[in-house]
Amino acid sequence: MPPIDTILRHLAADKTPALERLKQFLAIPSVSTDLAYKEDVKRAAEWLALSLRDAGLEVKVHLTKGHPVVLAQSRPDAAPPGAPRVLFYGHYDVQPPDPIELWKTPPFEPTVRDGKIYARGAVDDKGQVMTFVEALRAWSHEGKGKLPAHVTVLIEGEEECGSPSLHDFLQSHKDELAAPRHDFVLISDTSLWDRQTPSITYALRGLCYFDIQLHNSSRDLHSGVYGGTLANPATTLVEVLGRLFDAKHRVTIPGFYDDVLAISPAEKKQWATLGFDDKKWLAGVGVRQPFGEAGFDTLERRWCRPSCDVNGLYGGYGGPGAKTVIPSFAGAKVSFRLAPNQSYKKIAAAFRAWLEGQDIHGCTWKITDLHGAEPVIARTDSPWVAAAQRAARRTAGKTPVLVREGATIPVVADFKNFLGLESLLIGFGLEDDCIHSPNEKFNLDCFELGCRTHAALLAELGATPGQK
Amino acid sequence: MPPIDTILRHLAADKTPALERLKQFLAIPSVSTDLAYKEDVKRAAEWLALSLRDAGLEVKVHLTKGHPVVLAQSRPDAAPPGAPRVLFYGHYDVQPPDPIELWKTPPFEPTVRDGKIYARGAVDDKGQVMTFVEALRAWSHEGKGKLPAHVTVLIEGEEECGSPSLHDFLQSHKDELAAPRHDFVLISDTSLWDRQTPSITYALRGLCYFDIQLHNSSRDLHSGVYGGTLANPATTLVEVLGRLFDAKHRVTIPGFYDDVLAISPAEKKQWATLGFDDKKWLAGVGVRQPFGEAGFDTLERRWCRPSCDVNGLYGGYGGPGAKTVIPSFAGAKVSFRLAPNQSYKKIAAAFRAWLEGQDIHGCTWKITDLHGAEPVIARTDSPWVAAAQRAARRTAGKTPVLVREGATIPVVADFKNFLGLESLLIGFGLEDDCIHSPNEKFNLDCFELGCRTHAALLAELGATPGQK
Repeated sequence: MPPIDTILRHLAADKTPALERLKQFLAIPSVSTDLAYKEDVKRAAEWLALSLRDAGLEVKVHLTKGHPVVLAQSRPDAAPPGAPRVLFYGHYDVQPPDPIELWKTPPFEPTVRDGKIYARGAVDDKGQVMTFVEALRAWSHEGKGKLPAHVTVLIEGEEECGSPSLHDFLQSHKDELAAPRHDFVLISDTSLWDRQTPSITYALRGLCYFDIQLHNSSRDLHSGVYGGTLANPATTLVEVLGRLFDAKHRVTIPGFYDDVLAISPAEKKQWATLGFDDKKWLAGVGVRQPFGEAGFDTLERRWCRPSCDVNGLYGGYGGPGAKTVIPSFAGAKVSFRLAPNQSYKKIAAAFRAWLEGQDIHGCTWKITDLHGAEPVIARTDSPWVAAAQRAARRTAGKTPVLVREGATIPVVADFKNFLGLESLLIGFGLEDDCIHSPNEKFNLDCFELGCRTHAALLAELGATPGQK
Repeated sequence: MPPIDTILRHLAADKTPALERLKQFLAIPSVSTDLAYKEDVKRAAEWLALSLRDAGLEVKVHLTKGHPVVLAQSRPDAAPPGAPRVLFYGHYDVQPPDPIELWKTPPFEPTVRDGKIYARGAVDDKGQVMTFVEALRAWSHEGKGKLPAHVTVLIEGEEECGSPSLHDFLQSHKDELAAPRHDFVLISDTSLWDRQTPSITYALRGLCYFDIQLHNSSRDLHSGVYGGTLANPATTLVEVLGRLFDAKHRVTIPGFYDDVLAISPAEKKQWATLGFDDKKWLAGVGVRQPFGEAGFDTLERRWCRPSCDVNGLYGGYGGPGAKTVIPSFAGAKVSFRLAPNQSYKKIAAAFRAWLEGQDIHGCTWKITDLHGAEPVIARTDSPWVAAAQRAARRTAGKTPVLVREGATIPVVADFKNFLGLESLLIGFGLEDDCIHSPNEKFNLDCFELGCRTHAALLAELGATPGQK
């Protein structure tokens, strides 16, 4: 097996062709949510398959009810029998480019300006997928087909539209994907902590999302003729939702916090070193003051504590001017972000019971549980985390920080609960990359850092025994 | 002056031509809110002017910034010098006929079926205007130009779009319209209590209507990344609005009830005789239980107590499915119906102060006072009420009930506060007349009862001295 320095030199020498490959990938408009792009999505899957084959893997493009899943594996003899088995996960589909008129250069004509590549999918997630594809390619070419670890690459084409086909795919490929056939999942779909500091994300919040409606009269009523004589569903709805929080801004649903994992003193100590400036972070989106559950700081509220948001309100008259109506119904979108160890189903049931226990003065509930995802937390003392930390220290010159994430990546819970695999999330984006927005970009030095870090991580895995 | 029986005989003999006149009036599509009908609205004003001239009045069609006002007056020598001076008010404009496909016969092709005339405006308010026009015509024709009272008729063409020109018109004609040049205003734009029982409405609630918005972040935020760390405007809005009512469903704004006029024992006693069945009334609109301010029954809540309604909710995501957004703002339409003796401006100021006193965790209010109208209550012991009661007793064979109304007719407060005139509301509609809806109708026997009652009321006024 060649030393890591050889691989890193290879990557340095191969920068220009690697950028060309990235441009080719980004030029394919693989918008998964819009059927008009169906053939382009397929083309992106096929392009990726070729690229993975070129990196020495055996590849198959699996058709699904939706868009294809690309599954690639290293040959059984590519790595030593006892080497770790890593499952790379990513997605080759992208968000729609709208509003297209706000792009400085067309979203599917990748353009480099000031050391950044601009295109839809530049960082989310095509560019980040290419960081490990390039690392695998460098290893394979320098090592003549040999790799330091057993590698499976699973790249789906439906992440941006809710991964509707993925669970079925995992089900039908459980034998070859689940533990103990793999040791862990490796994902690059997150960000650096800052320009100088890599991060490893070890926990994600879950989600529980409801549409709730209150109904009363059979039609909208005149508020003069009927006002004061019956329960107005809009008034009753705000009254009920107004009881969701107590004076400490804690959710009042009984048992809501019962399962929430406590924050360890070690984590608090570590986060204190991050220099996170919550006022600056909030000011970036025009918010003047932090606000949330009493007794916790912004980082704890964002990463470790469950939250509850009204995501939308509707019902009655919302246009300009006045309409004196008592609406026949009113509704709200209400969601919870779940802290590690909370259960989506348990919280969903508790919220429903709480709603049904409220006095609604003769109105009727229409409650729809739209979807949910479990929170996840991974061990930070695993050999994979240690390997990733060593790798990033080598390539970035700085120990990566261990962070959590407030958002939800549903597939990570699936990997854990369904395949028995923990995920290691190490990403190379930046906060200003404009994902899901016009002028999405990926800094080329971040892209290169990603390629080098994945190469170094493979080297570290080569020095780490597998779990089986 | 001929005896009232002569006038009633005239009306009975003149039924068919009167119905033809009503049909002509209803055939003109005088939809005031839609400029496409502007010429039709003008045509309706001119038709009405001719009709009033034919009833012996001196008429002028006054142009305004919007649609014309028709103003007619009896000649100074038409009635004895000491006779009462009555100002009739009504409107000749109508609501749009949409949804037009639900009409059984076209809205502007008046059609008689089963003793009812179907057309837009049949009862609101063209048909009711014609009840007193026909009464005046009968008196004028039989009395050779003489009338029992001095009469002014003011018919506007913008009632269905908020009467934007009327206040200016009252201002510029204050001298000739206000007290003591008139004794009271007579309005037919309400309903009978039931098929057998006329009603006189002596009180109306006022209105105070707000659009309120809470703003926080400069753009919509990801509820995973930011959830729990800042005040969500939608969550904060429901929290604030949830505090608008206490456990007795009383409005919590300080001083809100201070000026509310108490209900007299005599009124309560009288209403007890009405046989109002609130459960049946609410069941008619699909509502299973009455609900409102503790300590009051449905009729009191509807007529005498102020109410507060959320007329609409908006902000964030309200479409199908889920969107995990923290909205940058959320809003509500909130209105109050004001009980007699409450002041629109005082309540508006109190609500604004209440909102501004709430803890909104760093959000910003955008509060818009959209409009308001004062409540009104008239004396029930006036000679005009007594005259109307005697007149209705003669024509309906039953003493009219004295009722209030929960809705608002802004012009009535203008008449009272600006012209110093109390209004007497006696109407001949029925609850099932479908005003503002498809298949609006006016029962012909109600129309005829209206004509006869106005004729008899004029006779009674002839036996009542004016106030000056």
